[in-house]
Amino acid sequence: MNVFEQSLELHEKFRGKLEISSKVPVNNLEDLSLAYSPGVAEPCREIAKDKENAYKYTSKGNMVAVITDGSAVLGLGNIGPAAALPVMEGKSILLKQFGGVDSFPLCLDTQDVEEFIQTCKLVAPSLGGINLEDISAPRCVEIERRLIDELDIPVFHDDQHGTAIVVSAGLINACQLTRRKLEDLKVVISGTGAAGSSIIKMLHRLGIRQIIAYNIDGIVHESKSDRYDDLTKELLKLTNSENFLGDDTLASALVGADVFIGVSVPGIVTSEMIKTMNKDPFIFAMANPTPEIMPEEAAKGGAFIIGTGRSDYPNQINNVLAFPGIFRGALDARASKINEEMKLAAAKAIASCIPATELRPDFIIPSAFDPEVAKRVAEAVVEEAQKTGVSRK
Amino acid sequence: MNVFEQSLELHEKFRGKLEISSKVPVNNLEDLSLAYSPGVAEPCREIAKDKENAYKYTSKGNMVAVITDGSAVLGLGNIGPAAALPVMEGKSILLKQFGGVDSFPLCLDTQDVEEFIQTCKLVAPSLGGINLEDISAPRCVEIERRLIDELDIPVFHDDQHGTAIVVSAGLINACQLTRRKLEDLKVVISGTGAAGSSIIKMLHRLGIRQIIAYNIDGIVHESKSDRYDDLTKELLKLTNSENFLGDDTLASALVGADVFIGVSVPGIVTSEMIKTMNKDPFIFAMANPTPEIMPEEAAKGGAFIIGTGRSDYPNQINNVLAFPGIFRGALDARASKINEEMKLAAAKAIASCIPATELRPDFIIPSAFDPEVAKRVAEAVVEEAQKTGVSRK
Repeated sequence: MNVFEQSLELHEKFRGKLEISSKVPVNNLEDLSLAYSPGVAEPCREIAKDKENAYKYTSKGNMVAVITDGSAVLGLGNIGPAAALPVMEGKSILLKQFGGVDSFPLCLDTQDVEEFIQTCKLVAPSLGGINLEDISAPRCVEIERRLIDELDIPVFHDDQHGTAIVVSAGLINACQLTRRKLEDLKVVISGTGAAGSSIIKMLHRLGIRQIIAYNIDGIVHESKSDRYDDLTKELLKLTNSENFLGDDTLASALVGADVFIGVSVPGIVTSEMIKTMNKDPFIFAMANPTPEIMPEEAAKGGAFIIGTGRSDYPNQINNVLAFPGIFRGALDARASKINEEMKLAAAKAIASCIPATELRPDFIIPSAFDPEVAKRVAEAVVEEAQKTGVSRK
Repeated sequence: MNVFEQSLELHEKFRGKLEISSKVPVNNLEDLSLAYSPGVAEPCREIAKDKENAYKYTSKGNMVAVITDGSAVLGLGNIGPAAALPVMEGKSILLKQFGGVDSFPLCLDTQDVEEFIQTCKLVAPSLGGINLEDISAPRCVEIERRLIDELDIPVFHDDQHGTAIVVSAGLINACQLTRRKLEDLKVVISGTGAAGSSIIKMLHRLGIRQIIAYNIDGIVHESKSDRYDDLTKELLKLTNSENFLGDDTLASALVGADVFIGVSVPGIVTSEMIKTMNKDPFIFAMANPTPEIMPEEAAKGGAFIIGTGRSDYPNQINNVLAFPGIFRGALDARASKINEEMKLAAAKAIASCIPATELRPDFIIPSAFDPEVAKRVAEAVVEEAQKTGVSRK
């Protein structure tokens, strides 16, 4: 059986992946009178006096909803809310397993941006946070931005920021290993959707100033701004400061670059193209399941460091390194939002999980199962939430 | 410490009552590849082909949302969604403990009926059912009716029907014990809100034709119909077929009655009033925490069978006897709704848990911890769902 058949069997056997249980005993009438009526009136009264008491007396403070509209599920596209549920349940169990965060899926039967936002706002009172998931770009960017502004609980769209955070951690360690400086790197990124644009913003915050973005319309360039949606227009400010167009191919952009980052489509990079890059380039080819260039090919072209989204190659860029610790930290800090500083702190914390002496070209990203990762990420996120004044604790 | 102080301590100690966990292992990269990417794409594809497959490959089929707007929480009134959360979590753990049903609370930040209904409809794709909770009357009746009509998953408002089902079970057993017939009973009911009106409808379905309803406006009577909301107007058809008004007091209504059912306010019935009822009357005084008449007083007046909502007296009318088994059955049958026949079957199933030979005046309602109850209720509900054609299995 292949991984798909095995997965189907697993899902059928357990009838889904999520289960809810009680943290308190319910074995006799006395238990009932404390967990439920009449005793439960007391925590209700305390919260009625001060809403913040919900964090003290309920599960709110550790409860996240994983919310989608099913408009961009994995690589499957717009398969709708019901079909997205297995992914949302998966996210929930990862939040629990790696971050100790309780969560449940909400698959919304609307793809109207305003209705989606309004629904998230209406369900917020019982939630400690919202993890947005598998929402198509550029809608996801507006949805996340609006919810961050309009709610007082952390809202995070992992598809945008998860990859950005982990690939940033990889870049930090790659620079450390090769004694290069982030600000000297020339980066070419293929893909300017949800993940790509978040990566560009994060690279910019890391001090990287030479970024060329490439998408289905070719190199992102001022001359094409009429065709761009708002999301891509924003990228014009952060990329291509030298107004490079070349012959408007990925190949021309890669000449002399230090880093290739792909969050786009399989097979668009060749070893010949890599040979034209600067010496010992870093290649993060994260198209799933088949990368922009297979690691063997990248190595042939002279790639020094190679990362993919795949678990069967070294340096897996796995979002699970980021989101569980980020939510853990945001909830622990009772943060009103997850800001850019907190995301950056998370990237640095992930990078720090491999001691400098242990860094190798095939080990710049820690294992998804390194228990240190979520812990360090959470601590860094709490610290940064406090520093930036978004912690309410 | 009293029950309120103890409950507060319990809630603080555990930081709420609910926890989410994984049913599948997540211990290594292989587990991840089956529970999450890339394997998870396969159940997604199967559900995209046919939505019903969500019941096969996800937790949907056993997942209920406990939804409130916090407009009528316990006896505390309109304390809002955040303060309602401890009750919703309580409901969740009871659903699990007694019915094996997974659930999570959604406390909605709106008290607009249309917005509430719309939100429930939008979150439905990931749910196997909806338990409405602590919503004020008469809004709750419209909300439930609309959701039953407009959704294809079971929707149940326990505050309306839970008490009705359990008190019906009590009446069935009381009649059996005393060899009376339901259809001969003359019943007076005090309270015509969510619970009261549902009780009246259920008594009517049980074949009881002599029902007098009493509320804050006195005896429910045709002459007052101008003042009534739609909910109370409906009751005119089911009650007071003899157009009795007396001196428009509860006392006058009770003269010659066989049964008093109270879902209203403490202390409005006296032992003197009970003396004017038929011989050996049944008294179900369910105002919480202080009943319409205390059991000792009711006994003084000659009450033969006495039930209350309290756990410290015999015959506790406890909703937990009904809702966990009802949801268990509705989910097992994959019922599109919980219809009147299923509710009636639940009442009979609860009654059946005490063998005829063991019935006593102080034991006509089984214990909340009798494991037989939810099992029998679920079986009866499944059977009735199949009979009435609402089962999709």
